[in-house]
Order: sequence, then C-alpha cells, then structure tokens
Amino acid sequence: MNITIERELLIENLNVIMRGLPSKSPLPILTGIKFYATSEDLFLTSSNSDIAVEVRITDKINLEIKETGSTVVPGKYFIDIIRKINSKKVNLYLDEDKILIIKADRGEYKLHIMNALDYPKIDFVALDNPLTLHSDILKDIIKSTVFATSQSEKKPILTGVNFNNVDNKLVITATDSFRLSQKTLNIPEYRNFNITIPNKSLDEMLKAIDNYDGDVQLYFSNNKLLIKFKNVVFQTRLLEGTYPDTSKIIPSKYSTVVKFNKDSLVEAVERVSLLSPRDREKDKEITFSIIKLSIKRDRTIEILTNNAIIGDAREEIIPTEVEAEGPLNIGFSSRYLIEALRSFLSTEITIYLTEETRPFIVKGEKDNNLIQLILPVRMD
Amino acid sequence: MNITIERELLIENLNVIMRGLPSKSPLPILTGIKFYATSEDLFLTSSNSDIAVEVRITDKINLEIKETGSTVVPGKYFIDIIRKINSKKVNLYLDEDKILIIKADRGEYKLHIMNALDYPKIDFVALDNPLTLHSDILKDIIKSTVFATSQSEKKPILTGVNFNNVDNKLVITATDSFRLSQKTLNIPEYRNFNITIPNKSLDEMLKAIDNYDGDVQLYFSNNKLLIKFKNVVFQTRLLEGTYPDTSKIIPSKYSTVVKFNKDSLVEAVERVSLLSPRDREKDKEITFSIIKLSIKRDRTIEILTNNAIIGDAREEIIPTEVEAEGPLNIGFSSRYLIEALRSFLSTEITIYLTEETRPFIVKGEKDNNLIQLILPVRMD
Repeated sequence: MNITIERELLIENLNVIMRGLPSKSPLPILTGIKFYATSEDLFLTSSNSDIAVEVRITDKINLEIKETGSTVVPGKYFIDIIRKINSKKVNLYLDEDKILIIKADRGEYKLHIMNALDYPKIDFVALDNPLTLHSDILKDIIKSTVFATSQSEKKPILTGVNFNNVDNKLVITATDSFRLSQKTLNIPEYRNFNITIPNKSLDEMLKAIDNYDGDVQLYFSNNKLLIKFKNVVFQTRLLEGTYPDTSKIIPSKYSTVVKFNKDSLVEAVERVSLLSPRDREKDKEITFSIIKLSIKRDRTIEILTNNAIIGDAREEIIPTEVEAEGPLNIGFSSRYLIEALRSFLSTEITIYLTEETRPFIVKGEKDNNLIQLILPVRMD
Repeated sequence: MNITIERELLIENLNVIMRGLPSKSPLPILTGIKFYATSEDLFLTSSNSDIAVEVRITDKINLEIKETGSTVVPGKYFIDIIRKINSKKVNLYLDEDKILIIKADRGEYKLHIMNALDYPKIDFVALDNPLTLHSDILKDIIKSTVFATSQSEKKPILTGVNFNNVDNKLVITATDSFRLSQKTLNIPEYRNFNITIPNKSLDEMLKAIDNYDGDVQLYFSNNKLLIKFKNVVFQTRLLEGTYPDTSKIIPSKYSTVVKFNKDSLVEAVERVSLLSPRDREKDKEITFSIIKLSIKRDRTIEILTNNAIIGDAREEIIPTEVEAEGPLNIGFSSRYLIEALRSFLSTEITIYLTEETRPFIVKGEKDNNLIQLILPVRMD
C-alpha cells in the first residue's frame, strides 16, 4: 500500500472513523484502523462491540493511490500524529508489511502495523429498502431524548432509546424510570419497526453526523441499524428485549398549568440548586440536587431548597401564565428539570402538573412533538 | 452587619479573596470568608496554612454600609451564589447572628454563618520599607520560573522559587534537580535578602495580580512575604532552609550553539513526543516523554524517538544558525524542553550544548536575563 492524501481530507474522515474506535479492547486489533486501498478507493474501518464504521474515500484530486493493499494501524497514535502534523499532504506506505511509514514535510513516523487478515469481518446490514430522514431530524431526535436514558446496567433495555414506528408515526422514547423523554414524528411511508438503540451508540452517531447536513439513509436488520450518509456507513447493534410500555405513564389531565420563560427558569433553578442537598448515585459521579417548586395560593411561584448544613435558597419566578386550582408543592431533581428544559428549542415552555406525588410534564411552545416527564420525590 | 454592594465590585474582590481559601481545611472556619464592615470600609479576609489575603473595599458609590458588624460566611457557597446571580446589586445582612441573608432581585439565600471571633487572628507583615516592582515584572518572574520547581516533597526547599538579592541584583531560581530556571534582574536600591517562596503561593499570587496593571509593594519579614496592590494585601509564608547553591551547575563554555525558530521547534518536539516511551513519575500523573536531539556530521538536525512497542518518529529541523565541533546526540524529557521554550517571549531561541552527559541551556533572543537549563538522560 502506498497512498498520498490531502491531510484535511484524511482528518475529516478520521473524525468519523474514531467514533468506532474502542479506548480499550480485549481484542488488540480493534484498537487499530483498517486501511484497504483498491485502485480507485481507500476504505477505512473501525469497530468495537457496539459500533462499526466504514468510510470510502474516492477523490481523484486529493487522494493518489500509488500501490493498492491493506493493513491495520494503531488507531489512537495514527490520529494523534495526523492531527499534530501541519503539512498539506501526507504520504502513507508500508515497509515490508511490518511498518507503516507516514511522511509529512520533514517528519517521518513509523508505526508497527497489524495484519489486515486478522481484522474481524464485519457483517454490515444489506443496503436495501432504506428509511430516509434528514440529518437535522436525526440530530434533534438524539439530542432531545438520549440524556434521559439510564446510566445503570440494572435494566439494560433502559440504557437505550426506543424507536417505535406504527403506521408511519414514529415514537421515540427514553427513560431511566425517574424521568422520560418522548418525541413523536410522522415519517415517510415505511414498514412498522420497534427497536432500541444503545445510548453510547447514539452519542457517537450524533458526533459522526455533526458536520453533515443532508439526507441520511437508515437500514434495519433484526439486531442492527445501519445509517449511511456521504461516504460513511455507521452501524450499531440494537438492544435485545422488549421496551416497557410507557404510554400509561404520561398523564392526560392536569390541575395546574404554568408557562415560563425557559432561560429565567433555568437560571433560577441553577442558582437555587447550588444549596440543595446532594446525593451521589452509587458508582456514578452524578449529583442529584433536590429542589421544590411551590405554587402559592396567591399564584406567586417559588423555586426553593432547604439544606440543614449550609442554608436555604429561594427564588421567586414570574410566570407568563398560570392556571391553578390551588396551592401545590412538588419536589424533584434540579438536574432532571434543567436537562429537560435544555432539550427544547422554544423560549416559552409550559409545565403541566396534577398533584404532588404524580409525574409532571414539560412542553415547549415550538416543540409540539416533544414531551419531557419528571417524577417527583417525596419532600418532608 | 447590613450592606448593599454592586455585584461586579464584590465579584472582582472575591476573585482575589478566593486565592486564600483552602479547598479543605482541618479548621472548618478557614473554609469561610471573614466579613468585617466598619462605617467606612468592608474588609474581606481568607487564609490557609500558606496564604492570607485581605481586601479593603472603600467605595462610596458602589458600597453602602447600613449597619457595621462582622461574620464568617461559607466561602465556596457564597462565591458560587454571587457568581450565578445576575442582579446589579446584592444586599447582605445578618439575621440574629446565625444566618447571612443574600438578597438579589427576586432571590433570597440564607447561609449559616460562623462567629467572626473564632476566626484566627492573622499576623500581617508590617507595612514599612517596601520594595516596589511593577506587576508585569512580578508576573514575568513567576511565569518563567515556577514550573521548574519540584512537585515532590522529598526536598521541601525545592518546591519553592528562590529570590536572592545581592546588591540590588536579584537572582530568581527554580529547580527540581532535573532542570533549572533562572532569571536575573536589577532592582531598585534595597537591602539584601534570600527567600524561598512556595510554588503554590506563587501560582495563587499570579492569579491574584492577573487583572492588575501597576506597581506592587513587597514587604519582607523573617518567615513571610506580603505584597500590596490596589486594595489588596496578599501574604505567603516562606520555606525554611537554605536554598542549594546552583551557581556551579550552569556551564560557562559550550561546544555547540544552535539557533531555532521557537514555534517550529515546539511543534516538532510535540509531534515526535507523541510516540516517545512514557514513564509516570510516582504519585504524580506526569508523563515524561524522552526524545533525542541529534546534530549530524553534515549539520542537519533531527528530533527523534524510538518506541519498541508503537514505532519511531523523526523530524528534521532547519536551524537558523549552527556552530558545532562535531556530531552530538543528547536525550532529554520533551516536557522539560517544551516548558522551557514556552517561558520565552522571543521567537528566536538558542540552545547551548557541551556534551551528551552534561546539562544544556536555552536562552531567548529577547529574554536576556532568562536561562533555562535541562539535564540530559542517558540514551541506549
């Protein structure tokens, strides 16, 4: 193998390929990037237990393949070097199938390589019958749901986001059983499906399509989803098991409806939560600050917290609209509310409450098809 | 105590006061900020085992003292709240000497306070006979030396920077026994002194004067240094013990002198060190990447490294000038060289070498009074 490639073109593709590189792997060859140069194209592949990514670089101007061939190069080191180099072009060639030589301006780097024949064969989903969605829709779906998935492996199915398509109405749901995000959208004519995608795969998918603006093709198999865009295929395994039915969790009647300016609410909640008592979830460095939303008899609204050791905090919030039957006090995690609020594009958001022990939901003026639900915690 | 203060003015002063707040302290009251309001001024004080900081806020327009008094408030929480608030003014007052109430717009925060009488009395150095230096000089001294101090407590004196004034020639030295930074400057007429300032105190001092541009007064006592600027006094303890005589370490003759463009050298060293073998210093997460500088018979110059596991890296550097008796190969920590190079303002730097086992020094075209010295490591 002997190729010369524009550094910018290589980096752009490495930024996608790195989404499939494991930081560690029981299989050392998977820490490598597979190169496969035909007379026309350069294929790069990365994969781990969840994700496989392949890019096909075909560029007669910025890529010159002098000699075809294949190899597996140490992924992290290769990417680090290419990023640090500031030459316009790089030349990559093999020395006796043991070493990859990277030449760039006056620099020469030699990396011990692995045998491409030892790289596991990846079984990509067949590229027929795609569902086409625009990248903006896919990004929006991921951003507005994935944060609500469970970080704990106790119920593995909850570590994923569920995509349930019934008669071209796609319902996307994420929940960690303390809060729930749900987005609904109409999609083009397509067969029904019900799949759950691991949250980590969605995080990586979001980064992979970050710089892309255009249509994305989705291909489904029994246990995998493959997305195709530009010169990239990105495949993830799906979670096994049945996703719980969440349809009955979302209340349909409300006693209290309050409209807020999103930013003022976020700021007040952040300030108050500085003083709220902290619990650390076991194994995770996540702090849950419990705060209280209080709707008074006179319809003034407060966010407050009591901390026996440090002190108390209280912020009055001026809602833009209130419909309330009577006073209400509800306690919940400030982090859940802030993450929920940040998922909306709208500047005006509405909170719908029933009673102190029942979940409440948040909707946005301009985000019709997005619901964020939060379960309250019992306050003393 | 009852005061109303412009939030910006308070934050500006808290940014200095926080330099003296310990993150943890065996003495809980030291995690607090002492407030002392007279009819004219508000004094804020923080202190830990190394540093004490006091600011005096006198501002008839932006500070209104309605009621004098004193208290100690939880430092971290107070600063977090004042930072997150976005009101123009804040009102601070005591409720029955048990609680500090912070009022800002529609927010109200109550912090449990400590008794100002329990706050340790701080023995500040008497404010007479100062040495005056401009803040730019002080910043420059700290930035160009402190990184070379030892991070290990094995030889405590080496964790400080030595300031030795003999007949108005001030020599500032830092060394961890593997490299050395030395700056020399002429100062105004002042008595001789020889003091060693803890590196952590200098880090905090640098942050404290970061936004200040003007003269700084330095006051010395047997075991303390106090600096005064604007409305701030910042005091640090000094390290006990005699600083080693480093005057004989710096070579006076050189066989090889090479001039480089600083940025190209930094970039090449950073790239090559991506592949250099790493050792982790015990107890510290610092990696030492060993690289080699090679001056060939034909006067070409290379930076290189060999890594048995990953591979090799080599960069040719084009020097702007070379004087060499013959070929030379010298190995050293890439981190030491990069930190040394970054301490220079000059774009042209010169490396002076003698032989492979002897220290080499780096000087900058425009930094006449600064020397960086690095000890080589033995290469195989």
